[in-house]
Amino acid sequence: MKAEIITIGDEILNGQIVDTNSAWIAQQLAPLHIRVLQITSIADTAEAISQALSEAETRADIVLVTGGLGPTKDDVTKTTVARYFDTTLVRDPKVLAHVESLFQRTGYKDMPEINKQQADVLANARVLFNDVGTAPGMSVERGGKYFAFLPGVPFEMKFLITNRVLPILRSREQETRVYNAYLLTVGLGESHLARQIADIEEAMPAHIKLAYLPKLGLVRLRFTAVGANLSQLTEETEQIVEQVKMRLAAYVVAQEDISFEETIVRLFAHAGQTLSTAESCTGGYISSLITGVSGASAVFQGAAVTYSNEAKVNLLHVAPHTLETEGAVSEQTVQEMAEGAKRIFHTDYAIATSGIAGPTGGTDTKPVGMVCIAVAGRFETLVKTYYFKNDRTINIERSAVAGLTMLYNLFKKEYMLDVE
Amino acid sequence: MKAEIITIGDEILNGQIVDTNSAWIAQQLAPLHIRVLQITSIADTAEAISQALSEAETRADIVLVTGGLGPTKDDVTKTTVARYFDTTLVRDPKVLAHVESLFQRTGYKDMPEINKQQADVLANARVLFNDVGTAPGMSVERGGKYFAFLPGVPFEMKFLITNRVLPILRSREQETRVYNAYLLTVGLGESHLARQIADIEEAMPAHIKLAYLPKLGLVRLRFTAVGANLSQLTEETEQIVEQVKMRLAAYVVAQEDISFEETIVRLFAHAGQTLSTAESCTGGYISSLITGVSGASAVFQGAAVTYSNEAKVNLLHVAPHTLETEGAVSEQTVQEMAEGAKRIFHTDYAIATSGIAGPTGGTDTKPVGMVCIAVAGRFETLVKTYYFKNDRTINIERSAVAGLTMLYNLFKKEYMLDVE
Repeated sequence: MKAEIITIGDEILNGQIVDTNSAWIAQQLAPLHIRVLQITSIADTAEAISQALSEAETRADIVLVTGGLGPTKDDVTKTTVARYFDTTLVRDPKVLAHVESLFQRTGYKDMPEINKQQADVLANARVLFNDVGTAPGMSVERGGKYFAFLPGVPFEMKFLITNRVLPILRSREQETRVYNAYLLTVGLGESHLARQIADIEEAMPAHIKLAYLPKLGLVRLRFTAVGANLSQLTEETEQIVEQVKMRLAAYVVAQEDISFEETIVRLFAHAGQTLSTAESCTGGYISSLITGVSGASAVFQGAAVTYSNEAKVNLLHVAPHTLETEGAVSEQTVQEMAEGAKRIFHTDYAIATSGIAGPTGGTDTKPVGMVCIAVAGRFETLVKTYYFKNDRTINIERSAVAGLTMLYNLFKKEYMLDVE
Repeated sequence: MKAEIITIGDEILNGQIVDTNSAWIAQQLAPLHIRVLQITSIADTAEAISQALSEAETRADIVLVTGGLGPTKDDVTKTTVARYFDTTLVRDPKVLAHVESLFQRTGYKDMPEINKQQADVLANARVLFNDVGTAPGMSVERGGKYFAFLPGVPFEMKFLITNRVLPILRSREQETRVYNAYLLTVGLGESHLARQIADIEEAMPAHIKLAYLPKLGLVRLRFTAVGANLSQLTEETEQIVEQVKMRLAAYVVAQEDISFEETIVRLFAHAGQTLSTAESCTGGYISSLITGVSGASAVFQGAAVTYSNEAKVNLLHVAPHTLETEGAVSEQTVQEMAEGAKRIFHTDYAIATSGIAGPTGGTDTKPVGMVCIAVAGRFETLVKTYYFKNDRTINIERSAVAGLTMLYNLFKKEYMLDVE
């Protein structure tokens, strides 16, 4: 099946925001074996909306539209879409009650008409109830084609795709079965991974496809098998996954579709180990990744974000002498920070970072992108210096992935000692 | 003038990469008052390419195409584009020499035909010489419309837009001018804002449009004016912005297109004030937002992420008695956390959070989504309890925005005292 995505709204067209919704949607459709033919971003005018819909309808089986819904702007979108499908708008009582209950939480009385209109839906649509916002989604089927209209706010869109749209699309696809398997790798680039498993990939049957999904220091491998018999697909795919996993043993960290930080939280929880961080250039980003995982509290004790030298001394007991002679961005400083965090949070492991995230603050000997990272474990402390060459945001993200990778490797090494 | 952007390549359609090129291009066009009408991502097939070109040509004055050029894939794009413009491909000797010199640097001899083809350009095109890569850009003019074809690799595309395309576009005659102005508001929803300024919006001339761009607790207002005379547009728009700003004075935090955290860093830097955080449920997220802003080090001293009770006592000196009688998620605890952070980091202000982010850990009296937030200022400490009702990620994000909003309001109040 072929899909198209249409995003409505000026904020993408004038470059104010980057359209991350479409890539996310495409990733969700891939496991259902639905291919995205075209992604179109348009202004919220009646002319642009109806033209984009009619062009997409001629090419695709599935048309997913995001944006253009919301109390101050859904007027144009909804009336244009109603006209496009030769239908009218009706007020949905269940949606209205939901919008009213959200409105009452704000403490205001007398909900204005503009909010009531949020409950207006196409008369011929299935309402995609939006638990996490006021703008309902809608889906329409016409001539065997499926259309969905969703708000553009990412978390509302994601909620509706996951809980309302994908179940419908899954039920449409009945003869064809799809099986997906995943391997998460760290520490080796896409092309190097591909080279290491070239022979396995070459020998794969045509109905099993391997996709490399890279993301700053991590590469996720997705195996997608398509056929008639699910148990056979599962067995065939898992055999290949097993081969790849053995070949890439040094780089594979998870065999599920979960994040690296979730992998670490699960591993640590399983082994009864605890973790803390001492962060300078990453500014709490590693801590926020870890604590974003449900269940992190069993593992994570806390973080000391020590942006100033004074805080490094007072909180983490870094020696003033070290800061004077080696500087804040140095291997000696991060070693003392990691060991300090281990002590003050009473944890088995600690990650410490100090670097120059940029865009300013670099010198000849310590350029922008230079980051020192230490991981203190139960038996030893690893220290390493990296030279990232990106902008501030990416340098921070790369530092986080590098710190988590060092942590993962030290944990695995020390855990093996226990097992032996 | 109206532009369209077409991006060619499967990696965007299958969600493997996010299209950041288009937003960057749109940002470069805005100062030239060129409005992007549509952004289209398509596969690298002859059919998709010629269809997208012909649709764009009917609507826009400028068509910028990225991607689909490169040694393994430029075949389809170039031959399709040549056919579209009724022309042929010719080998450009200057480009060929450049490609050969880059090839020789790799140490290989005998450049294969596939690389020589990189020097093939449309016979009727102006070559946009690519100093930083092997794929040349090309531009074609037809019927007063301007087309440019550029490689998709971001730094090559950026080089060519900046050094080859923008100079040409600048020299073309422009009739339509566009002026944008922004207001960032916090603390009031989209529909409530709209109601408060309904009369101003109603009275706005037709050529000035107002868009509401909401994002978890924040709403950005964008005013876009289109017309012939830029200085007149600027004056008209700024008058309206001033009216709206006065009406919404309690909610407006910035008059530029910047983030809330950047607003706060700038304000604090300007006033010479310092900040720290003490975070439980937000797990360092507030700290990572603040430190994501370049220049944060002038303002931000550090954060204590105290996930465990032990860390709350040891690092922030929260009284064990408070934790026993009131619990970790309580107004008394966050008040002591905020005041503790102020003391240990020696800052003028501190934000503290403690709550139940979910999905587990809730009780009848302290449900998932309950978050206590304190902001300690120079003269007083504000404390408030919120009940968010979303998933873990969103509860954390909402807590961060609520904490920053409390901080902003307390800062403003105390700053006023200084000024008086």
